[in-house]
Amino acid sequence: MVCIMSRKVILFIATSIDGYIADKQGGVDWLPTDTTSNSEEDNTYETFYQAVDTVIMGRTTYDQVVNELSPEHYPYEGKASYVLTSRPGDGKEDIHFTSEPVVALVERLKNEQGGNIWIVGGSSVVKPLVEKNLIDEYQIAIAPIILGKGIPLFQTMNQSVALKLKKTQAINQFSYLTFTAK
Amino acid sequence: MVCIMSRKVILFIATSIDGYIADKQGGVDWLPTDTTSNSEEDNTYETFYQAVDTVIMGRTTYDQVVNELSPEHYPYEGKASYVLTSRPGDGKEDIHFTSEPVVALVERLKNEQGGNIWIVGGSSVVKPLVEKNLIDEYQIAIAPIILGKGIPLFQTMNQSVALKLKKTQAINQFSYLTFTAK
Repeated sequence: MVCIMSRKVILFIATSIDGYIADKQGGVDWLPTDTTSNSEEDNTYETFYQAVDTVIMGRTTYDQVVNELSPEHYPYEGKASYVLTSRPGDGKEDIHFTSEPVVALVERLKNEQGGNIWIVGGSSVVKPLVEKNLIDEYQIAIAPIILGKGIPLFQTMNQSVALKLKKTQAINQFSYLTFTAK
Repeated sequence: MVCIMSRKVILFIATSIDGYIADKQGGVDWLPTDTTSNSEEDNTYETFYQAVDTVIMGRTTYDQVVNELSPEHYPYEGKASYVLTSRPGDGKEDIHFTSEPVVALVERLKNEQGGNIWIVGGSSVVKPLVEKNLIDEYQIAIAPIILGKGIPLFQTMNQSVALKLKKTQAINQFSYLTFTAK
């Protein structure tokens, strides 16, 4: 018997209690980092990332990653990266700049063989996928801060999307909430 | 030895994943209710409510409660109710309509003896208390739905408020996140 697990589309992201993924300038230095010696080991990201072979992000997120968050080293090396942009231009090895609408891209990739697809952000990439219920799993890590203002994870939408709670877990100061599509 | 536990100011509230406490019309019928026979018993509200002797809410929330959510029976009977309104008028037994700013009211009540003080809502009552860091405990019950639009729990603020995660717990389809002031 051959079992083929279809690849999952996963939104894995950290937010503030008030639902912001970044401050107004796109920065995330408000996210707390556990540096205390008695902190619990948190392998959530590593476990998640191992099963991913494709990452999708908007151009603004990509620029933030390569210019500010990780200028020395592209953090998604070895995975297929899709960067959504109105001005595609030339890609680099494994980094595809594309103007394909994110819904079409995700529907196409889901029909191909492969590992999980990580929706890295930002909110303009997330919104059409939520609306079309194309996200199979939401892993939201809530940091213990009310940020006050910034870039929200969820933009306003005209319809609601009911999900199913799979798991709730606290590791150090983060609350990990996992939801699946209904 | 006499130990006096000071009363706590608690924001206990349910939100959608995208942080809404009500739809645009103030309705909460999108909140899921567990009616399946195999659902776990959820005493979170009862346990919380037993230790409360004072409730504070805005006029809009009060009107919603008495006109729509619970028209037959005032649900906070037996507790001291403070309803914040620009037009105080006459109160009823145990229901005080007041134009006192919520920050002054809460600071005054905190210095009196008593049980816990529940901030029922809505967001215009919550905002100044968050800004002044007057909320001792946040108990946020997250329902597994992305509502799309509505009345957000947290209005935008010019500063951030860092909290401490106390507990994360899933009961049936709700994720209960408890934070305390730092």
